[in-house]
Amino acid sequence: MRPLYVYNSLSRQRELFEPLEEGHIGLYVCGPTVYSDVHLGNCRTFTSFDIIYRYLLHLGYKVRYVRNITDVGHLEGDVDVGGEDKISKKARLDKLEPMEVVQKYANGFHEMMSVFNNKPPSIEPRATGHIIEQIDMIQKILDNGYAYIKNGSVYFDTPKFIADGNPYGKLSGRVVEDLLQESRDNLKGQDEKNNPSDFALWIQADERHLMRWPSPWSVGFPGWHLECSAMSTKYLGPHFDIHGGGTDLKFPHHENECAQNLGACKESPAKYWLHTNMLLLNGKKMSKSDGNSVTPGQLFTGESDHLTKGYDPMVVRFFMLQAHYRSTLDLTDDALLAAEKGYRRLMEGYHTLDSLSGSNTGNASALDQEIVSLIESTYEDMSDDFNTPKALARLFELVTKINGLKGGQLKLADVQAETIDKLKETYSAFLFDIFGLKDESSEGDSNVVDGLMQLIIDLRKEARSNKDWNTADKIRDTLSELSLQLKDGKDGTTWSKI
Amino acid sequence: MRPLYVYNSLSRQRELFEPLEEGHIGLYVCGPTVYSDVHLGNCRTFTSFDIIYRYLLHLGYKVRYVRNITDVGHLEGDVDVGGEDKISKKARLDKLEPMEVVQKYANGFHEMMSVFNNKPPSIEPRATGHIIEQIDMIQKILDNGYAYIKNGSVYFDTPKFIADGNPYGKLSGRVVEDLLQESRDNLKGQDEKNNPSDFALWIQADERHLMRWPSPWSVGFPGWHLECSAMSTKYLGPHFDIHGGGTDLKFPHHENECAQNLGACKESPAKYWLHTNMLLLNGKKMSKSDGNSVTPGQLFTGESDHLTKGYDPMVVRFFMLQAHYRSTLDLTDDALLAAEKGYRRLMEGYHTLDSLSGSNTGNASALDQEIVSLIESTYEDMSDDFNTPKALARLFELVTKINGLKGGQLKLADVQAETIDKLKETYSAFLFDIFGLKDESSEGDSNVVDGLMQLIIDLRKEARSNKDWNTADKIRDTLSELSLQLKDGKDGTTWSKI
Repeated sequence: MRPLYVYNSLSRQRELFEPLEEGHIGLYVCGPTVYSDVHLGNCRTFTSFDIIYRYLLHLGYKVRYVRNITDVGHLEGDVDVGGEDKISKKARLDKLEPMEVVQKYANGFHEMMSVFNNKPPSIEPRATGHIIEQIDMIQKILDNGYAYIKNGSVYFDTPKFIADGNPYGKLSGRVVEDLLQESRDNLKGQDEKNNPSDFALWIQADERHLMRWPSPWSVGFPGWHLECSAMSTKYLGPHFDIHGGGTDLKFPHHENECAQNLGACKESPAKYWLHTNMLLLNGKKMSKSDGNSVTPGQLFTGESDHLTKGYDPMVVRFFMLQAHYRSTLDLTDDALLAAEKGYRRLMEGYHTLDSLSGSNTGNASALDQEIVSLIESTYEDMSDDFNTPKALARLFELVTKINGLKGGQLKLADVQAETIDKLKETYSAFLFDIFGLKDESSEGDSNVVDGLMQLIIDLRKEARSNKDWNTADKIRDTLSELSLQLKDGKDGTTWSKI
Repeated sequence: MRPLYVYNSLSRQRELFEPLEEGHIGLYVCGPTVYSDVHLGNCRTFTSFDIIYRYLLHLGYKVRYVRNITDVGHLEGDVDVGGEDKISKKARLDKLEPMEVVQKYANGFHEMMSVFNNKPPSIEPRATGHIIEQIDMIQKILDNGYAYIKNGSVYFDTPKFIADGNPYGKLSGRVVEDLLQESRDNLKGQDEKNNPSDFALWIQADERHLMRWPSPWSVGFPGWHLECSAMSTKYLGPHFDIHGGGTDLKFPHHENECAQNLGACKESPAKYWLHTNMLLLNGKKMSKSDGNSVTPGQLFTGESDHLTKGYDPMVVRFFMLQAHYRSTLDLTDDALLAAEKGYRRLMEGYHTLDSLSGSNTGNASALDQEIVSLIESTYEDMSDDFNTPKALARLFELVTKINGLKGGQLKLADVQAETIDKLKETYSAFLFDIFGLKDESSEGDSNVVDGLMQLIIDLRKEARSNKDWNTADKIRDTLSELSLQLKDGKDGTTWSKI
């Protein structure tokens, strides 16, 4: 299998990827909290991991991809301890059953993932569906001495964990001494935790709390950090290959996951940690309250002050591919307009390539070697920590070759038939299988449109040969109104959308 | 609110529907078991309940529609007690985690529901996500004395339940004495249950069983019947309005649900029980083993010996509407061909109606009264136990009126503008909101196709006026190859798909 390098947040280094079990990969990605519509920033995260998942599959790995749905216990910071979580709050306001809210937004999330052409994960476990597993894990942490019970709630004991030599702070790069010092400084007595750096594993529910389950400690609900530890352990084992998520989850969520897994199973959960970076809007962090925000829906319809028009979801996906997943990505209308052109150029390259066929079975020319080398480089870039912008740049170099071959500036006779086949295979694999783009021009009534356009091209040709310029003009004008254009070439007339 | 009558399987009578809480309806429907692709018969069941759900919403009810996903513990009859259920068996064969199998088929199920344009339920709970609730319900049944423990498994005690005067057999119409006699006759000693009519609430798992949870009785898994009792109670309360499902679930599944709810909560779960009838293929029960079977996918592609061609999902939905949900429905190729014509006629009626506008504000004519009365009858039929075939027949009577008004055989001046508006509103509500049909002609590149067709119609007209029969023939032949046909009328030429 082709060597793959990934940047591991845990070691802060680019490392050769070596799966724990040959040919198999366990991949866990923190999924959405379903109490509101999915944020565009989350769409970027999940699309980045979709491309990673697709590339791992393309390389030939058998991947078990687990992405959870957080439908309970997502506390807004530790201030909320003992209070209600976001989901129940919303449910009460709407006079809805919490699960009804969860269902609505989970459905919306799935639809959006489908619009972005993200593959569904192998398993999509829900926090509420794994209360028993979470209770079981808390019990193990208690048994190992890394948690304590206070008034029916259970807290992770960070100083005890650190005192035993465990690496709390390793993933997020926090200095343990600072964390503890901060803890002591901030402890003001109004909190039932022993230390501010401690965190809830189980929270006793008050009477008004709608989502609640019995446990050995109280009727309550699990702490947010716990679900990912319990579900990754259940479906991938206590130690698996890759854990992913947005960079904002590094601390405290992922740090606490590490602590919980070590505390319960004495193993660090993942060998490689991958973190995606933020999506900005016009250079600034998105924020609903100050108006610097755009929803996926607005992006598609164009109904936003930040946009001059709506964009196809595949244009947005292409736009996301233009940045490396570990870099911030700045969404602007100009960048989307440019992405739209880029996406079309890439797709036109596909169609042009499709119309080429090689016949040369002789020696490889310099051009042939150049194409073979570009194909290889595309793979190398993608195998270098999933560098989509670089791989994309290679594909555009290939588009130049493809157009040259089609236009006659480059000679098809200089390229071996085998190389043309390999180029077709690679080009199509990157566009559709790996990058997960869809060819929008091939959707819907396209066969009918193709058929009608061929008829119209024939009728126009006949009109022109009869010097019937009125008819030829009428055809051109009507097509133009429908945003269609004809292009006459030496091989006949072709058409495209404007 | 308009009065609604439903046939209640529990009373075996048509009853006036009276919700338990004014304006609100709790609706529970037994969902799919996700260990294989969804069966076409199940698609009929879920489509029938989708239409019922849509009509209840249309009438103005606030409906909480719960449809579960069975992802564990679906035993194949009581013979399998203590053994593995279908899902784990499949998982072992594929060397998959059971939840991976579940995810795959749950995704497939959701896609198929979407293809049939069925609305998602308000809540779609999973059996594995409600183990705690099931354990809790078993404990209540034990506490009430209607269950016993044997070797770590828990069984419902049917003779005890019956002896206490509970109505076991009421829903399915079985005679209690026969059930008990049968029980005594069939008890052969190799079963750990006390009576064959007893059924499992909790089953101790053997070592090889993959899906297992801790419980007060053993590490095991819940019996299949239990999940629906636990989840309907959790989300709709112990007594709710409507419980639905396929007629094949009446016994033992629904009978046992009634027993469990009574045994745990001393209340019968639902006020009204609605059961959908079977889908036959060519007059016989569908069966994979004897080849008398067709999958939804085959229905759409036509790749089956039973079909001459593929059918649009909306044609299949229309076909289902042509039978009452309590009648068997016989799927044949001829019936689908007829449904295709019917569906198109209904949709054409919609477009024709859309082009009509009334201006009469004077007195109502006989024709006007006839239309008003047909509108009223459509609602009456639908309110009579959701009689879709009758309501559909009324709509076709309205299509005749619509076409008459368009063609001039009936006078638009005889119909009040208000009536035309009401007709438009009702017609559209039934087609799209209540029957859940989609107008396939309005999908995809239809604007482009319309534009191109208009251009072609113009070019043909010109060719004909120039007596250029070659061009006119070429146009007709090419369109025919694309399954498009032209129709010349006094108002010009129109086109349609063949």
